[in-house]
Amino acid sequence: MRELLSKCKAAKRAAEQMSRVTTVTKDNALRAMAQALIDRTDELLAANGIDLENAEKNGVRPAMLDRLRLTPERIQGIAEGVRQVAALGDPIGEVTGEWTRPNGLVIGRRRVPMGVIAIIYEARPNVTADAAALCLKTSNVSILRGGREAIASNTAMMKIMQKAAYAAGIPEGALNIIEDTSRDTATELMRMNGYVDLLIPRGGKGLIKSVVDNATVPVVETAAGNCHVYVDGAADMDMAEKIVMNAKVQRPSVCNAAETLLIDRAVAAEFVPRIFRALSDAGVEIRADEASASLYDGSTVPVTDEDYYTEYNDYIIAVKVVDGVEEAIEHINKYNTKHSEAIITDSYSASEKFLNEVDAAAVYVNASTRFTDGFEFGFGAEIGISTQKMHARGPMGLEALTSIKYIVRGNGQTRG
Amino acid sequence: MRELLSKCKAAKRAAEQMSRVTTVTKDNALRAMAQALIDRTDELLAANGIDLENAEKNGVRPAMLDRLRLTPERIQGIAEGVRQVAALGDPIGEVTGEWTRPNGLVIGRRRVPMGVIAIIYEARPNVTADAAALCLKTSNVSILRGGREAIASNTAMMKIMQKAAYAAGIPEGALNIIEDTSRDTATELMRMNGYVDLLIPRGGKGLIKSVVDNATVPVVETAAGNCHVYVDGAADMDMAEKIVMNAKVQRPSVCNAAETLLIDRAVAAEFVPRIFRALSDAGVEIRADEASASLYDGSTVPVTDEDYYTEYNDYIIAVKVVDGVEEAIEHINKYNTKHSEAIITDSYSASEKFLNEVDAAAVYVNASTRFTDGFEFGFGAEIGISTQKMHARGPMGLEALTSIKYIVRGNGQTRG
Repeated sequence: MRELLSKCKAAKRAAEQMSRVTTVTKDNALRAMAQALIDRTDELLAANGIDLENAEKNGVRPAMLDRLRLTPERIQGIAEGVRQVAALGDPIGEVTGEWTRPNGLVIGRRRVPMGVIAIIYEARPNVTADAAALCLKTSNVSILRGGREAIASNTAMMKIMQKAAYAAGIPEGALNIIEDTSRDTATELMRMNGYVDLLIPRGGKGLIKSVVDNATVPVVETAAGNCHVYVDGAADMDMAEKIVMNAKVQRPSVCNAAETLLIDRAVAAEFVPRIFRALSDAGVEIRADEASASLYDGSTVPVTDEDYYTEYNDYIIAVKVVDGVEEAIEHINKYNTKHSEAIITDSYSASEKFLNEVDAAAVYVNASTRFTDGFEFGFGAEIGISTQKMHARGPMGLEALTSIKYIVRGNGQTRG
Repeated sequence: MRELLSKCKAAKRAAEQMSRVTTVTKDNALRAMAQALIDRTDELLAANGIDLENAEKNGVRPAMLDRLRLTPERIQGIAEGVRQVAALGDPIGEVTGEWTRPNGLVIGRRRVPMGVIAIIYEARPNVTADAAALCLKTSNVSILRGGREAIASNTAMMKIMQKAAYAAGIPEGALNIIEDTSRDTATELMRMNGYVDLLIPRGGKGLIKSVVDNATVPVVETAAGNCHVYVDGAADMDMAEKIVMNAKVQRPSVCNAAETLLIDRAVAAEFVPRIFRALSDAGVEIRADEASASLYDGSTVPVTDEDYYTEYNDYIIAVKVVDGVEEAIEHINKYNTKHSEAIITDSYSASEKFLNEVDAAAVYVNASTRFTDGFEFGFGAEIGISTQKMHARGPMGLEALTSIKYIVRGNGQTRG
């Protein structure tokens, strides 16, 4: 608690000073941070060794261990990511509109930093560099609170970045990591009104729920993705198969992977056998409704209503046969998490209906849900994918880390 | 509770249907609502009579009684406000950007409704019509929860609007009022995750604090305004007097009125006597620091640190003499609520420094803080003034009630 409050106070002071830091200084600092991470690879690996050893002792499973592990190549990749942030355009100071009122007041809308951004995240130490870089680029002060498992790696990485950034002219207190990984401290951070302008949780369902339940500071919820692909009666079957396979198996562990496949009854007899065979061959467990199961001679698992609510993040897919686009939309709007949804069709009216009526951050015609991503969208960066509707929705790039300020120039105007 | 949950469920269903309602239908409904309010003036006055009678019994003070009172003229004004909303452009469906990615994906950013907007407000029954109209115009479903004092007026007004709107083709459930005015129900509304996409509190400090502390749904905080006018050494004294008087006394009860006057030491001897005299003549109590009090031969009250934190909303002003623009900025950033701040100066460097470094939704040079308002800014409407930095900052017009959705059109793209 004492650590948290003193860091929050320092962060607030630094946030005021950040408004005077130029883009040149910020970009120089980012490049210096990247170089320092590479130059001090050995220290990072040593710290990471501590985390890995503790994780093994605690019986952490291999997939998790791999996410935690740093290697010289991974550190190179992390540094390269920071350099790419330096190369992006600076959104701060951009005037997104200016107009003159009848009384002569000139009103401009200028992009400004949010102030202090807190990020609570789990596992992977690369988020530490990523988040610090994106916040710094947007003149925001960051307060990072990573998971217990990666605390030695995160702290070492932050110390290296702090030293490099402060030497390059960034005000002290602009980069912070909370070393106390207790749950109580995380909860306190969620309630630091007056110090924290925006809180972004990055992690699993448990973390997001804890933040939504406990936070009193403004929050952007991220990343729960129960995504659907709907294969319409008017779909090209080859394209449909290619997209379903991509959305499900190209990287099943991520939030924009598909979890449920909806198939129009009009093409079920044709499409079910081939897609079930392909999914099965790729090692995907198929949880099928009766209509689809009866069209396939291989083995499937009966689907439950609970399945349709589930984000598997795994080689599992739920399947339902529906009566056309209307039922598909109804199913999606009932079960989805408003992340990414796709229709495969060559019908103009079905595609328009789907785009207009499905409620999600990103809706696709004839493309994989896997494209919902700040880099794939062309934002050059990503701090997370918002699944709420206010402030930012979908992939959050640099602009999502900015606020606005109205600049009003007058010559003596008073209100009548 | 039962009332709340059943209305939230109906609201969610209606929100889905609202995505298919055209601008023509919405505008027709708004005009029908306005006409119905006028046609049924007698019913409104009768309901308002009940509220007034209860208020008098409960010893409500006269200023409050006046805010609560409806008259035929006020109802005309409320109806006219609803008609003006009908006349505004519809932001829903606007595409704020569209671009093509190297792989051929066409990505568009389209304005969509937030979904269900809850508004918790106090006292004045005109907010009921105002909020319902702005939400309907932006294809949002509204759930209104007004204060106990105005419940008969609010409920009567809502029933009149519902009937008119639904007859004009708006889906049932799109307009809601919570008739149970218990505090518990308000708290439940703040926690209706999955039903409420945005909650806007409109009222005093107590209400805002209760929402910030209790809400788990996304919130935009509004309206606390501890605003400053800083009279710089390079100010035109006549302009400074005119603006200070306007910012303080033109309407002291509102959030964009000035609460503290900062005076540059360089002009204190010249400015203090004349502005203190003018404020005094206007019935303003002056809470002055020693430096300013010593320059004035009339009576003042010694200012305390607590005063500098206070939003009086009254004929009271705190005063401090500062050493130039730097100290003014420092004072403002320490004590303000990030609402509206003004500098009076003819110095280019002082004005730029103030605009850049003061942290507030609206910063002014040579104009009154009283202009922070959706109508004065040219937005044609206002649902409130946000004092937080995410989603919307400053006056919130129709756009602040919208979210976005990415529309992605492909021809078979998959991710490699």
